[in-house]
Amino acid sequence: MHGGGEGFYGALVLIRDASDDDWPLIYPFFAQIVAQGTSYAYPEGLGLDEARSWWMEPAPGRTVVALDVGAVVGSAKMGPNRPGRGSHVATASFMVDPQHQTHGVGRALGVHVIDWARAQGYRSIQFNAVVETNAPALGLWHALGFQTLATVPAAFDHPDHGLVGLQVMFLDLSATAISDTA
Amino acid sequence: MHGGGEGFYGALVLIRDASDDDWPLIYPFFAQIVAQGTSYAYPEGLGLDEARSWWMEPAPGRTVVALDVGAVVGSAKMGPNRPGRGSHVATASFMVDPQHQTHGVGRALGVHVIDWARAQGYRSIQFNAVVETNAPALGLWHALGFQTLATVPAAFDHPDHGLVGLQVMFLDLSATAISDTA
Repeated sequence: MHGGGEGFYGALVLIRDASDDDWPLIYPFFAQIVAQGTSYAYPEGLGLDEARSWWMEPAPGRTVVALDVGAVVGSAKMGPNRPGRGSHVATASFMVDPQHQTHGVGRALGVHVIDWARAQGYRSIQFNAVVETNAPALGLWHALGFQTLATVPAAFDHPDHGLVGLQVMFLDLSATAISDTA
Repeated sequence: MHGGGEGFYGALVLIRDASDDDWPLIYPFFAQIVAQGTSYAYPEGLGLDEARSWWMEPAPGRTVVALDVGAVVGSAKMGPNRPGRGSHVATASFMVDPQHQTHGVGRALGVHVIDWARAQGYRSIQFNAVVETNAPALGLWHALGFQTLATVPAAFDHPDHGLVGLQVMFLDLSATAISDTA
């Protein structure tokens, strides 16, 4: 068990807080994933410096990196979904280097975020915008206990499928005593 | 009819773009409404300068004020709900001076935002977080054609009711030819 700090997941993936030095290692796959246009509504064509504040999250949020044999292969950012009277609900975003997908990196980051949110005392986690055609993401979040609350119709302009829905997903941490850290 | 610019609504309410000079007139009811804690998840206790960027929206968004006999009695901010591939969905937030509620100001602002979003070519409007105990707001949005897509459970810490849900609301502008400007 681990309390949302640093830890190994699976066989090879280490997750730790991202430092400023990590951003140039995250940015290439951040830019590649945004350019693919299939999973995130970020501004397009952001340079290294412009993109930084879209991903490197200040406190009380945080950004982590996933390391596979020492190389940065993924990243997640997390924090309160809203300030003030909504700050007991966490949110998070995830990116895995397309060259390192299907190796459990996304799952390790997801489990890490759930553990972190629970350790920080968040009551739940809300994902605001999961692209409904992103089957690997939906499958992972469902496997980790998230439910789809709603699909906002035609809210995402997908390069291959045109206008597709964005799912609002939710995990109630107050009700789930199960911690999936396998 | 009007194209989302400036216009009279009802008998007395004029809506126009907010200027920098308007912010000190908006801030008192912004602060009062946030302090009441029943409708918005903003940081609490923000001063005049701190709160400005939470309400005065830069382009491509905008902020308007509602004037009743020349006095600023309400405000709305509006713009894209997400950047990039989600930027065809608008969002908006509304505040009406508690001393001037139930005089049609909220409705006038709501109609104005719908007209503006349609004129700007947005495909839909999404409200991300309407407090489920805010019956006047829910009644107004339903009357203007919004539907509730989902309620995120216990996502808002209400000072009187404890944890209550936040509704995700949606209006499809591509399907509704009706413009309620009565």
